[in-house]
Amino acid sequence: MDQDILYHLALGNESHDLVEMFGDIKFVCMGGTPRRMEIFAHYIMSEIGYKLPTGTALKDISKFSYRYSMYKVGPVLSISHGMGIPSLSILLHEVIKLMYHAKVKDPIFFRIGTCGGIGIEPGSVVITEEAVNGLLKPFHEVVVLGKVVKRPSLLNKKLIRDLKLLITPEDPYNLIVGKTMCTDDFYEGQGRMDGAFCEFSEIEKIEYMERLQKNDVVNIEMECSAFAALTYHAGIKSAIVCVTFLDRLKHDQLVHPKEVLEEWQQRPQVLVARYIKRYLQKMQTKSSTTFDSGYYPYSNFCSSMSVKSPRRFKLVQQESESYD
Amino acid sequence: MDQDILYHLALGNESHDLVEMFGDIKFVCMGGTPRRMEIFAHYIMSEIGYKLPTGTALKDISKFSYRYSMYKVGPVLSISHGMGIPSLSILLHEVIKLMYHAKVKDPIFFRIGTCGGIGIEPGSVVITEEAVNGLLKPFHEVVVLGKVVKRPSLLNKKLIRDLKLLITPEDPYNLIVGKTMCTDDFYEGQGRMDGAFCEFSEIEKIEYMERLQKNDVVNIEMECSAFAALTYHAGIKSAIVCVTFLDRLKHDQLVHPKEVLEEWQQRPQVLVARYIKRYLQKMQTKSSTTFDSGYYPYSNFCSSMSVKSPRRFKLVQQESESYD
Repeated sequence: MDQDILYHLALGNESHDLVEMFGDIKFVCMGGTPRRMEIFAHYIMSEIGYKLPTGTALKDISKFSYRYSMYKVGPVLSISHGMGIPSLSILLHEVIKLMYHAKVKDPIFFRIGTCGGIGIEPGSVVITEEAVNGLLKPFHEVVVLGKVVKRPSLLNKKLIRDLKLLITPEDPYNLIVGKTMCTDDFYEGQGRMDGAFCEFSEIEKIEYMERLQKNDVVNIEMECSAFAALTYHAGIKSAIVCVTFLDRLKHDQLVHPKEVLEEWQQRPQVLVARYIKRYLQKMQTKSSTTFDSGYYPYSNFCSSMSVKSPRRFKLVQQESESYD
Repeated sequence: MDQDILYHLALGNESHDLVEMFGDIKFVCMGGTPRRMEIFAHYIMSEIGYKLPTGTALKDISKFSYRYSMYKVGPVLSISHGMGIPSLSILLHEVIKLMYHAKVKDPIFFRIGTCGGIGIEPGSVVITEEAVNGLLKPFHEVVVLGKVVKRPSLLNKKLIRDLKLLITPEDPYNLIVGKTMCTDDFYEGQGRMDGAFCEFSEIEKIEYMERLQKNDVVNIEMECSAFAALTYHAGIKSAIVCVTFLDRLKHDQLVHPKEVLEEWQQRPQVLVARYIKRYLQKMQTKSSTTFDSGYYPYSNFCSSMSVKSPRRFKLVQQESESYD
């Protein structure tokens, strides 16, 4: 093909110099909403001591796609993926292509999210050891040319171990490594009784939750199986870190006040930021560059667009805007 | 339950006076992006002659959910649903509950979108007669308590006929009533060869597209089967009107310039607006209220929040903000 337009990111390989713009990426962090990922971008900036040039500010790179938000902080991309597998899968296809075009070697992908817990204290942080679908099978199913293709939803064991080791006795929460169930629906699909319809009894619901618990499911969200399967299929190391907002054995709706939930929401971000920081410090020791200056090997201090072809750049921006 | 919080809309039945805020709704129009639905809100406002009080402007009612955007223009709600079935289904559950809490009788739901066509001229408008899933079956499947539940994805035949009758000889496009396929993936799921992976040949792809065509599929998108099934299950009249942006027998990526795509994108909006306008005019004739004044029976001229309980109102806003 003549050029590859990543419509849903408002980027293209012939319009933008993707190597110059993204060649220094090492980490891709994803989460549900644009707001959370903007907050994470600012947080990781302070954590890794990344300094923006005076008079500049972070900018949503994919603003004109009107779908996802993408922020770049040196070697870290912070991107929103929306809700559910289809929305995540469009993004993953395009971000994986972006890594390819930008010639990024061995990037690490994280999903940082929120979820419902099963039989664990709300506020606990779960690192997904195994992602299973709504039928408790460890694959992501996708219909390709009319046939169901099953892809194993595997995650990187070493990355899980490394993340687990980053917990300190001061961390005010439980860290659990366990099985996460992925559903395509938030209400009926997660056994909630407060959706627009509910065709099961409370007893059946509780039995189901207990069955999940017996099958070692510790939390439920809506993206893990596709996130694991697509990154694994692409040979990309990845991990999923989520905080539980409620115990689904007890509730369907949230019961904790805003301030508490806000603090909880930071927990996966703090853990992943810790990993990124350590990783970069190790790299820096190897290359013996000073870190404090805010400069480190992966950064090129350029978060603005690098235009390769002004005509094509305009075209991609316009087409992404239209591809509603 | 004590109260019903519609988290993803940042509304609640005990915090907000939903009857006062939404009791006059007759039409719920949905589409993918916040931007498209904001544009539609302004368009429908001018089409139905709805006037905002001096010094006021449309406001995104669900802004603090950070997920969906919702605009209200008299009897019309214009809401973004994101991409894919899971994102749409969360919204539908909550909007159906919203209609219930607001005591709205017989609302009509529309999805106005963009799609890929099969063997039809790009720019054609398709009204979905039958929604089928990726395996060409006319249901939406949802896993409930670990079991696959199949719900018929049926649409209202009379509404389809009425929409079809609104086409005029001056409309510069083909209107097609036909079968729409719904997929959970944009790349492999729609037989595109330009995703991050592609494990089929061009010949297999073309054979697949031809098989779809032989099965009377005229267009492909990512929400129709759930939209049809959930509205049908709730007893809500609904229709799906999409414009095709390309012919998938010929292309995977877009080939038309921005201006053309922008014009095409308005086509489903124009058709649905025509339906809404005629409907309201008929209602007005029945109740013999003057229409020109910008006032009509369904409007209460109030698009701002009606607070029922200030304490709960704050709580819902805060919890929705956190429920990231």
